Amino acid sequence: MAQRSNRQRCDGGEVMHLAIIGCGQLARMMALAGWRLGATFSFLAEPDENTSGVDRLGTVVKRTPELTGQALFDALGQPSSVTVEREHVDVELLKTLQPFCLVAPNPDAILVSQHRGREKDFMAAHGIATAPYKVATGRANLKDAVLHIGLPVIIKTCEQGYDGKGQWLIRDSQALEETLSDIPDHVECVVEGFVNFSKEVSIISARSSSGECAYYPLTENEHRQGILVSSIAPADVPSESTLQQADKIANTILEKLDYVGILSIEFFVVGDQLVVNEIAPRVHNSGHWTQSAGIASQFENHIRAISGLPLGETKPKTQAAMLNLLGKEVDETLLNQGNLEIHLYNKSLRPGRKVGHVNLWHIDRAPLVKQLKELHQQVYGDD
Amino acid sequence: MAQRSNRQRCDGGEVMHLAIIGCGQLARMMALAGWRLGATFSFLAEPDENTSGVDRLGTVVKRTPELTGQALFDALGQPSSVTVEREHVDVELLKTLQPFCLVAPNPDAILVSQHRGREKDFMAAHGIATAPYKVATGRANLKDAVLHIGLPVIIKTCEQGYDGKGQWLIRDSQALEETLSDIPDHVECVVEGFVNFSKEVSIISARSSSGECAYYPLTENEHRQGILVSSIAPADVPSESTLQQADKIANTILEKLDYVGILSIEFFVVGDQLVVNEIAPRVHNSGHWTQSAGIASQFENHIRAISGLPLGETKPKTQAAMLNLLGKEVDETLLNQGNLEIHLYNKSLRPGRKVGHVNLWHIDRAPLVKQLKELHQQVYGDD
Repeated sequence: MAQRSNRQRCDGGEVMHLAIIGCGQLARMMALAGWRLGATFSFLAEPDENTSGVDRLGTVVKRTPELTGQALFDALGQPSSVTVEREHVDVELLKTLQPFCLVAPNPDAILVSQHRGREKDFMAAHGIATAPYKVATGRANLKDAVLHIGLPVIIKTCEQGYDGKGQWLIRDSQALEETLSDIPDHVECVVEGFVNFSKEVSIISARSSSGECAYYPLTENEHRQGILVSSIAPADVPSESTLQQADKIANTILEKLDYVGILSIEFFVVGDQLVVNEIAPRVHNSGHWTQSAGIASQFENHIRAISGLPLGETKPKTQAAMLNLLGKEVDETLLNQGNLEIHLYNKSLRPGRKVGHVNLWHIDRAPLVKQLKELHQQVYGDD
Repeated sequence: MAQRSNRQRCDGGEVMHLAIIGCGQLARMMALAGWRLGATFSFLAEPDENTSGVDRLGTVVKRTPELTGQALFDALGQPSSVTVEREHVDVELLKTLQPFCLVAPNPDAILVSQHRGREKDFMAAHGIATAPYKVATGRANLKDAVLHIGLPVIIKTCEQGYDGKGQWLIRDSQALEETLSDIPDHVECVVEGFVNFSKEVSIISARSSSGECAYYPLTENEHRQGILVSSIAPADVPSESTLQQADKIANTILEKLDYVGILSIEFFVVGDQLVVNEIAPRVHNSGHWTQSAGIASQFENHIRAISGLPLGETKPKTQAAMLNLLGKEVDETLLNQGNLEIHLYNKSLRPGRKVGHVNLWHIDRAPLVKQLKELHQQVYGDD
């Protein structure tokens, strides 16, 4: 079936027009990066989705049952490529667009990441280390799985969980029965053995429709209650081999999934080994620092990758960090610091909600660590 | 008359909404900078104005005779501030908005810059050096003025000229009669004596609605046929006192005009002295490098200034440069260079048309100069 060329340049009126499934801050920031490259955008919104982040940044199309295939392609303005800002999308709908334009990442790659069990099976099939795991549904099966894996465990719903939702931590057998009773009886879950990690890191990797790959340095991440609070890069890891593992794992996944776009992988660091926690078929919160490090950001590289353009620089010349603004308004004094950049998402303030982030950078790590800590204190106080 | 507060933050749903008169690339880039700070935008377009640069980046409002005052304020979405991307705007129309929101820069400041004679009179009144000049209309008066100033001269229309249009260079008396016959007989002109300059430089300066001022380093500019081709900063000038003069002149103009926003001043360098060429009440082509120097760009600082936010860092930590893309499409190999950033305007390609620019940076000047030269060769060949 005919595929529309995904390489369009600002040449005699031809404009690169791209569509994004989703209207959140990741869509917003991909569009802002793409605008600079001369692209225009349309966004597909669920009927009840908040579109404040992208309203007036492109054409917002509300999803209806009739909008599939050609009709959807036309409503989206006949994009050269369609991409996603979240893994939880209707893969069947995406497949109906494939005769008309590039869908990147491809629906099968997205499918893998939509289900934690499927994702871990994929890793196992390709020799990539994950936490010990077992998929189970229903309390009896879950209990068996827990005893098989061995406490402590984290139980997660296989589908739809994010930012710490749909997860249950069971440290000891006393908590076991009580926690199991909290878990819906019919929902497929994965039981994961605890990984005794020293750090959590992630890698943002890119693969273009031409097959070209690029890797950002490992990022070190701090979470609180399952939500990312801050990141710093390059990560401080004990061994060079750890860094090489990350690139290798990323490369394997990119190639095996015939992946196009940005792929994000979260790891646990155990000694000098990396254990995959989860992947996301999209740009990632832990990669926002790439906007302010004098390189092509993850957002820009995603646009380049899905448009068949050469990938941009991924090796930063400074250290960089990011602090999430979770339910916190911006203090204008933050704007006064020279090596700091604020990114706001135009979302209304709610406790714990991701309303923006602050990027900072410094040539040396120690001062950056110090500044990040002070910034955290300034924004969150002693919380 | 009640003034709406121009300080709005992303706080509980309140969003900073700004309006820009104009839909060109300067409006586009101000909006892209402002989006990151959580602002939204509307744009006022002349009836026949090309809006491709900003379509879907905000609400585009087509100007009609009924849209003045309250009607215009409402059509623009009740912005907290209204600003401009060009000096050639309807100042009377801007004044009708002043009861409803901040108009920055103020209409009187814009008026000064709209007329070359008025602009030079303003400089003279405040002890700021310009080229020797005389305003005249009609060939007889122009001839008198030319003889009074002394050849060689440049004759420019007092209003509406830009990028080298509406200018006539007269080197010697043989060219005088012939060139004078080219100049429309009824149009007010200014006759400027040649300035024997070593370089052309410019300064991008900022003054916030709070009165806070900030200055970017001097930029060195190369023109061809009156159009900016490339810039490099900080400018290489023979004396520290030259840099201080620039800040002092900028400060004088900012204060005397009670100016809010970015003010751009172009100078001739004569020995270690600065002679003002012209000013622009807006962001400027020679300041695009500020987007890629790890500081708050001129676009961001303009948004901050008109919103009463603290001004951002203006002192870059690297050398930076910019090459205009004049009627040239982007060669994708340009995307491969690590210290280079492309900005496209979504304008269709026409000979000599500003369709985008490329920013580049380096810690040292010599390699940057070399790279800029090679880039110029790559884009323009031996043109």
